[in-house]
Amino acid sequence: MKLIFVTGNRNKLREARQILKGHDISGMKVELPELQGKPIDIAKRKAAMAAEIVGETCFVEDTALSFDALSGMPGPYIKDFEQAIGVEKLPRLLDGFSDKKASAIVTIGYCEPGKAPKVFQGVVRGKIVEARGISNFGWDPIFQPAGKRKTFAEMPAEEKNRISHRKKAFEKFNSFLER
Amino acid sequence: MKLIFVTGNRNKLREARQILKGHDISGMKVELPELQGKPIDIAKRKAAMAAEIVGETCFVEDTALSFDALSGMPGPYIKDFEQAIGVEKLPRLLDGFSDKKASAIVTIGYCEPGKAPKVFQGVVRGKIVEARGISNFGWDPIFQPAGKRKTFAEMPAEEKNRISHRKKAFEKFNSFLER
Repeated sequence: MKLIFVTGNRNKLREARQILKGHDISGMKVELPELQGKPIDIAKRKAAMAAEIVGETCFVEDTALSFDALSGMPGPYIKDFEQAIGVEKLPRLLDGFSDKKASAIVTIGYCEPGKAPKVFQGVVRGKIVEARGISNFGWDPIFQPAGKRKTFAEMPAEEKNRISHRKKAFEKFNSFLER
Repeated sequence: MKLIFVTGNRNKLREARQILKGHDISGMKVELPELQGKPIDIAKRKAAMAAEIVGETCFVEDTALSFDALSGMPGPYIKDFEQAIGVEKLPRLLDGFSDKKASAIVTIGYCEPGKAPKVFQGVVRGKIVEARGISNFGWDPIFQPAGKRKTFAEMPAEEKNRISHRKKAFEKFNSFLER
């Protein structure tokens, strides 16, 4: 199946190709607005916009980091928070809350032109900790998956990719494509 | 001058008409996406989208509450935060920070079809306090303007409207329209 992954990120494109074997995945940078809202709604709307603009079957990927104590916030806004105050200060948002649990979420939005979009979500539960490790991905140093002693940023890429929210979402998406 | 205020809120429309005397202001509800980004960029893009959809000169209004300690966050996302955890818990986001200063911001985006959008911003400086007073507007109980002993929610509407960020933005906008 021929699919367009709307992303400007080569690493994400490579990872998608590895998981979605047997499908012809092209990367394309499309100027889509960054939307406010719930991760599922954002992914659906972005996928629908992409399919309309490009005129072919498209998928998009959105990341969120949702704090339980903040009922899901910052969620899709985590990137703006991280850019504003830096990853080291992010845990201080929870200084007033005893519950440090959080979910790392990837939501894939998929849309065939003229059809209703679908979504596939991968979630890893964990907790917010003081920043440890160095990473390319913004908030990896403060997220420690449940049952692990390392943050995402302390894990070798291989180890992280085996259990990541992105991996889970792409596996669900792959199962759908295989059907 | 004939202008369309893109809003579904009758109170905002009435207030706009009071300040923008001598202009013909119609209210119109237009489905615009809620965008992520800086308040000025959001207002510009929404105004441009509205003018394109409606085909007439439009303006939009966006509110933000920006915490100094969080370098401007939650900013335009304050509504989602307030809906997620409730206004009483919002000050706890700053428990880990000694700086409680904040800005209440209204940004008006204005666009004539086919032209570049303009923005007019009203800012009131103040600080985040424990919720006091009751209000129709989400976060009024936790914002105390600098030099005042009351939160926005403790002020009679008249008193708030005399000094508000909305008033300031609309006065700038009015000066522009008068020129």
